Amino acid sequence: MVTTADREVAALVQRFLPAVKSRLREAVPNAPGLHGLLRYHLGWEDQHGEPAEEDGGKALRPVLCLAACEMAGGDWRRALPAAAALELIHNFSLVHDDIQDGDVLRRGRPTLWSFRGVPQAVTAGNAMRVVADDTLLALSRVGLPADAVIEAAMELTARYLEMIEGQYLDMAFEQSDDVTTDNYLDMVGRKTGALIEGAMFLGALVATRDASLAHAFGVCGRRLGLAFQVRDDYLGIWGDPAATGKAVGADIRRKKKSLPAVYLFQHADESERAWLRATYADDEVTADNVDRVLAILDRLQAKAYVQQVAERQAAAAVGMAAGLGLTPAVRRTIEAMAKFFVTRQK
Amino acid sequence: MVTTADREVAALVQRFLPAVKSRLREAVPNAPGLHGLLRYHLGWEDQHGEPAEEDGGKALRPVLCLAACEMAGGDWRRALPAAAALELIHNFSLVHDDIQDGDVLRRGRPTLWSFRGVPQAVTAGNAMRVVADDTLLALSRVGLPADAVIEAAMELTARYLEMIEGQYLDMAFEQSDDVTTDNYLDMVGRKTGALIEGAMFLGALVATRDASLAHAFGVCGRRLGLAFQVRDDYLGIWGDPAATGKAVGADIRRKKKSLPAVYLFQHADESERAWLRATYADDEVTADNVDRVLAILDRLQAKAYVQQVAERQAAAAVGMAAGLGLTPAVRRTIEAMAKFFVTRQK
Repeated sequence: MVTTADREVAALVQRFLPAVKSRLREAVPNAPGLHGLLRYHLGWEDQHGEPAEEDGGKALRPVLCLAACEMAGGDWRRALPAAAALELIHNFSLVHDDIQDGDVLRRGRPTLWSFRGVPQAVTAGNAMRVVADDTLLALSRVGLPADAVIEAAMELTARYLEMIEGQYLDMAFEQSDDVTTDNYLDMVGRKTGALIEGAMFLGALVATRDASLAHAFGVCGRRLGLAFQVRDDYLGIWGDPAATGKAVGADIRRKKKSLPAVYLFQHADESERAWLRATYADDEVTADNVDRVLAILDRLQAKAYVQQVAERQAAAAVGMAAGLGLTPAVRRTIEAMAKFFVTRQK
Repeated sequence: MVTTADREVAALVQRFLPAVKSRLREAVPNAPGLHGLLRYHLGWEDQHGEPAEEDGGKALRPVLCLAACEMAGGDWRRALPAAAALELIHNFSLVHDDIQDGDVLRRGRPTLWSFRGVPQAVTAGNAMRVVADDTLLALSRVGLPADAVIEAAMELTARYLEMIEGQYLDMAFEQSDDVTTDNYLDMVGRKTGALIEGAMFLGALVATRDASLAHAFGVCGRRLGLAFQVRDDYLGIWGDPAATGKAVGADIRRKKKSLPAVYLFQHADESERAWLRATYADDEVTADNVDRVLAILDRLQAKAYVQQVAERQAAAAVGMAAGLGLTPAVRRTIEAMAKFFVTRQK
C-alpha cells in the first residue's frame, strides 16, 4: 500500500536525485586506473570499464542533506557539493565494509575486493574518501563563505570519526554475547546515525550559515538515521521477501548482530541462550535453526519491540523538529520522512 | 663521518621534534578502544596499552614543514597543526601499507594487522586519517585566516590523492617487468614526493598566506622527497648493514621493485632477464641468487646510476630554491637538507 508519506518522500527523491547523480559524475575523474575502480563500485561501469546500467540506490544521505537545506530556507542546489560528498563517504565506507565483512556481493555485483584483491580495494576506498573531501571543499567555489566551509569540514570530520568508531564497535560486538540494546543503539547511532546527522547539519548550514540551527537539524537527522537503521534491522528478518529481495530470516542466517539478535541474546532463557551460542558459533545458521530462532523471537515479541524502537526514534525526530520554529509545511515534510523511514517495506 | 649538512639537519630536527611529538599526543585522544590502536602504531604503547619507549622515527614531513615555515619568514610554532597532520597522514598510509604488503614487522614491532586482523587495522588507519584532518583544521584556531585554511585543506587533499595514486601504481608495477625508470620516478614522485611537497607548501603557506610562493616551496619539496626516496632505494641494497640495520641486498631478497630493480630489468641482457624473471617469481630470493643479482647490478653500474638520480633531484631542489629570492642563510639550509638527503647512511 502506498501511503502519503511514501509519495511525499518519493517526490523529494525524484526532484533531487538527477542533480545528485550528475554532481557525483562531476566529482569522480573520468581517468583510467584507480578511478575506474571507483566508477565500478558506484555502479557506472562493469569490470571491463564498459558503461553499466545504474541500479539507482537510495541516496538517503544526499536527499536528507538537500531536503534540510530547502527546509531551512536555502536553495538546495547550493548544497550539492555537500550532498555528493556524503554519498561518496558512504560509498567509501561500503568498499571497506565489504572487505571487513568478507562480502562477495553488493547490489548483485561482485564487490571490489572479491576480484581486485584486498590491497587495491583498500586503496580504492581511500581514494573515494579523498574525492569526497575534495568535493566538500568545492562549497567554497559556490559562494559559501570560508568560515562556513571550515565549519562544514569540521562537522564532517567529527561525524566521520564517529562513523569509524561505530564500525570498530560493530566488529568488537561480533565477538561478544552480552551487548545490551543500549550498547547497540549507541554503536548504530555512530555507525549510521552520525553521517545522517552530518547530512542534515550540512544542508541547514549551507542554507543559513547558522551553526546552532544546523546542529539542531543534525540532532533531528541522527534520530531519523536511527529510525531508518532499526527499520532496516526489522526488514532484514521480517521483511517481505518480494519487496526486500532477501529471504525471510536472512540476517539470522548471516548471524548479523542487528537489534533483533541483540534483544534475543539479552532476553532468551538460560537453555535457549546456550543453544544460541552454539548455533551462532557455526559459519552459517541452517534453515531449521533459522526457524527455531524465529520461533524464539516470536515468543519474546521481538518484532513488536524492534518496530517500537524505530518508532520511538522517529517520534523523537519529529519532536525535535517541533522545537525549531519551522513552518507547518516543513514540519509536515519531516513528519513524512519519519513516517516513511519506519513503515517502508524495502 | 659526520658532515656539516648532517649537523645542520640534526640541529633542525632537535629544535622541532619535541614540539611535534607533544602536538601529536594532543591530537590523538587518550581514549580506550580504537584510539589505543593508533597509540600502539605510533609507538607510544605496547599491545597491552602500557606506555612504551618511543623509537623516535625521522619525522621527515613535520620537520620539512616547520623548516619551510621558518625559511619563509614565519613562526614555525604556528605550523605545528599542519606538521602533526602530515605525520599522522604518513602513519595512516603505513598502517594500510603494512596490510597491503603483508608485512608483519615495522620498526621491530608487530604490525597492527598482524595481531588485530585486517578489518580492525583498516579501521585504525582510517581513524588515523580523520584525526589528521581534524588536526589540520585546527590551523583555524591558531589564527590562520579561513581562506588560507581552506587552501591548506585543498592542498593536502590533492597531494593525498596523488599519494594514493602512487600506492595504486606501485602495486600495479609489482605485476609488471617492463616498468621504465621514468614510470618509476613518476610513481614514487606521487607515493613519496607528493606528501613532502605538501609539507613544504603548508609550512610556507602558514608563514606567508601566499599560495604561489607556497607552491614554489612545494615543488622544491617534491624534488627533495624524490632525492630522499631514491637514496632510500640505494641504502636498501648497498647501505652499510651496521648503519641501516638491514642486510646487504635486503631489498633484493624481498623482491622490492625499487629503482635498482627497475634499472636492472630495463638493462639486463636477454638471458639475464629470463633468469631474473624466474628468480623474482619465487617467494623470496635466495642468498646465492642475491649475490648473482648484486653482480649483475655491479656490471650495469647501477649503484652509480641510482646515486646520480638522487643527486640530480637534490640539485633540482637547490636550483628551485635559488629562484625564490630567499636569503643566503635560508638557501644554505635548503642546500644542507638536499646534501643530507643524498649522503645519509641510514
